[in-house]
Amino acid sequence: MESNLQQVIRNLLVSYETVGGLNNTDGLNLPSTRAIESICEDLLQLLFPGFHDEEPIHGNCLTQLTESRVTSLSARLEDQICRSLRTTQPDCPLSLAREVLGEFLASLPATRELLSTDIEAAYEGDPAALSSEEIVLSYPFVETIAIQRCAHLLYKAGVPLLPRMMTEWAHARSGIDIHPGARIGNHFFIDHGTGVVIGETCHIGAHVKLYHGVTLGARSFQKDAEGKLVKGGKRHPNVEDWVTIYPNSTVLGGETVIGERSTIGANVFLMHSVPAQSLVYYEETQLKVLSKRHVPAAVAELEWVI
Amino acid sequence: MESNLQQVIRNLLVSYETVGGLNNTDGLNLPSTRAIESICEDLLQLLFPGFHDEEPIHGNCLTQLTESRVTSLSARLEDQICRSLRTTQPDCPLSLAREVLGEFLASLPATRELLSTDIEAAYEGDPAALSSEEIVLSYPFVETIAIQRCAHLLYKAGVPLLPRMMTEWAHARSGIDIHPGARIGNHFFIDHGTGVVIGETCHIGAHVKLYHGVTLGARSFQKDAEGKLVKGGKRHPNVEDWVTIYPNSTVLGGETVIGERSTIGANVFLMHSVPAQSLVYYEETQLKVLSKRHVPAAVAELEWVI
Amino acid sequence: MESNLQQVIRNLLVSYETVGGLNNTDGLNLPSTRAIESICEDLLQLLFPGFHDEEPIHGNCLTQLTESRVTSLSARLEDQICRSLRTTQPDCPLSLAREVLGEFLASLPATRELLSTDIEAAYEGDPAALSSEEIVLSYPFVETIAIQRCAHLLYKAGVPLLPRMMTEWAHARSGIDIHPGARIGNHFFIDHGTGVVIGETCHIGAHVKLYHGVTLGARSFQKDAEGKLVKGGKRHPNVEDWVTIYPNSTVLGGETVIGERSTIGANVFLMHSVPAQSLVYYEETQLKVLSKRHVPAAVAELEWVI
Repeated sequence: MESNLQQVIRNLLVSYETVGGLNNTDGLNLPSTRAIESICEDLLQLLFPGFHDEEPIHGNCLTQLTESRVTSLSARLEDQICRSLRTTQPDCPLSLAREVLGEFLASLPATRELLSTDIEAAYEGDPAALSSEEIVLSYPFVETIAIQRCAHLLYKAGVPLLPRMMTEWAHARSGIDIHPGARIGNHFFIDHGTGVVIGETCHIGAHVKLYHGVTLGARSFQKDAEGKLVKGGKRHPNVEDWVTIYPNSTVLGGETVIGERSTIGANVFLMHSVPAQSLVYYEETQLKVLSKRHVPAAVAELEWVI
Repeated sequence: MESNLQQVIRNLLVSYETVGGLNNTDGLNLPSTRAIESICEDLLQLLFPGFHDEEPIHGNCLTQLTESRVTSLSARLEDQICRSLRTTQPDCPLSLAREVLGEFLASLPATRELLSTDIEAAYEGDPAALSSEEIVLSYPFVETIAIQRCAHLLYKAGVPLLPRMMTEWAHARSGIDIHPGARIGNHFFIDHGTGVVIGETCHIGAHVKLYHGVTLGARSFQKDAEGKLVKGGKRHPNVEDWVTIYPNSTVLGGETVIGERSTIGANVFLMHSVPAQSLVYYEETQLKVLSKRHVPAAVAELEWVI
Repeated sequence: MESNLQQVIRNLLVSYETVGGLNNTDGLNLPSTRAIESICEDLLQLLFPGFHDEEPIHGNCLTQLTESRVTSLSARLEDQICRSLRTTQPDCPLSLAREVLGEFLASLPATRELLSTDIEAAYEGDPAALSSEEIVLSYPFVETIAIQRCAHLLYKAGVPLLPRMMTEWAHARSGIDIHPGARIGNHFFIDHGTGVVIGETCHIGAHVKLYHGVTLGARSFQKDAEGKLVKGGKRHPNVEDWVTIYPNSTVLGGETVIGERSTIGANVFLMHSVPAQSLVYYEETQLKVLSKRHVPAAVAELEWVI
């Protein structure tokens, strides 16, 4: 076994030298998944004080705690911003990272105001929600939209990698995959959430409500003369104010606009715009309801061979 | 930078005073997400002895281990029950929390009996399952239904917040979102599970089998004279004994009943009742299958612009 | 309370003796969920050196680090392979576990070559992906397919339990549920991923692209004369080279073949084969778009009662 292990190690080392795209051994100082995990957790503590702690925070400790949290977070976040910037601009000075960080931190109160409207929207939008405490403590979209709104600020500031890693951290926890590029208005609510996908170039208005499994995605991808994908470009839909989209519906296309106050039913697949105040759904006449008593025995035996 | 951080801290402290709904700094002793996480893990150890441990448990240690686990769990659970009760009844005596806890612990053996039927149902229902060990070790619904059955007992006892936080802990791990209010019969099986949503007022019979992505949800929400949602009320469907619902189907409405021994196909969207022994599906004639060879070149180039 | 706890403990101990299928207290040395978690994390570190570490790995440490990682991993993995083998072959010698382990470790470089093509496919297939670093750091399918490709090797070597527990670890993190039995070609890409289910007997060709929510599942289950499920058998579809399947589509059946270069639209439910170069979708004429302005006021008030 000993010599076998030596052989395994030698072969792996050869593989590290010859197989590309999955090694980070060349001195490139990439942002760290683990550091970003702790940054996201600390951001949630700053945004929702007392909700992500073992014990509630009493008023007289709040100043001191906030000081120590902001100081600790900003040092680590500066490092990750700097690493991210340097993946595309190797000579990027630390001062640029510091500037981006400063603007990011300065906008935390405004982010909290937006999040406050999201919690309000959940309370208004779900008959099962009995208090804002219940929403912060047990609605997975709260954490996800909090992280996305933070990541979006870093995305707009031109930071690569880091914002996507932040939203992916949230995605792994909630099943809600919102690209940091998506622009999302106030009073946003996603119920349940698992399977929601919101693409990079989506613009979502105010008071929009989505259910689990809703995709706001790309319709098709442009290719260049060599058949390679064209990166970037407006690829995902716009959803105007007061729109509701029911579970598992898919809306695709960069020119698709869901007009304000529209309602999209469940399981709908939509690739063109609809005007304001539309109701979109499938006619139910297409559904077949047979009685097992009247279908051939063989069918019943196989339970389901439709 | 130093003075900038001071400014950030000051602005956050102002925000904590002025932006509501997302602070827990007023001395309200809410249940703790982290404490509930460890309670859920300990409940799984009690319900499935030896399966959630690093090493198997040998018979002669079982008594001592069970004693220490029950003692440790009950102290922490009592605290969380008490915190939860006091969010709605500030003067609730500790004795009430203790009583709820006593009844909850006393019902653990009955819960184990139900869970034993769920594992049986998975074995009977999935050709890929080769042993009950495999089911406990690698089927995510086992953990989810175990926590939901526990949370349901606390929900019935009138404990707020805590039951929802428990099922949300399970949801984050499995992608299966079952409200603690849902009543679920014996021999329940969910295969794969990601994206399943089961609403608060669902009644599910015995021997029901669901696949991933199935929603048992609300059809529409009643509003009062001021346009506010009416909280509570029967909003979600009933599913009778021996029903199977295939992946990604959506059944909505508080008056919708899926009659016993019915089979609902995949991707179905159903908002009315069906009688016992129904087969429900979409006719496949509506599906278009074109050959790319016969569609315009432009279409083929764009890969998919249907 | 004290005597109540004693009663709870006594009842639980009785339950452990009488309720079967959920206890591991009989000395059976099952594989450990926690050990497998750390094994999966260590495998990812070996496969993607420097990406799953707090700090990047510098070239001159790589040999030493790889040696210590391989040595540590192989001891723990050997133990879990041995435990798994002995659940079905109680007298299985340690040498067999060692042999399986040796072959597994020897194939890590080939696995890395496959994974390298998967990352290439993601870069070619997603206009939002800007670098291979971004893909490894923030695309959840990378981790899932890496673990599945490893688990598949152990599955082919006849190891029970362990491979399923590995893919279930990945499923809990990404929402992507791929059975270790599935055979998957090179250049495989799943975008977003939440809700994807790929069954045990799927054969997937090269250059296949799937979106979130895609199911490659079983159509119906064979039962024996006593009405029991027949375990095993080819139950899941084949997907040939260069096929793309859009979000939330379901393809079922062991005899179903999706011919090469076919494109399956979103939300499609397909239970029969389609030839090479097919375009499969639903005609959109079935979708109803009404204006809320023209529907009865009652309907508009209830927001959505279609």
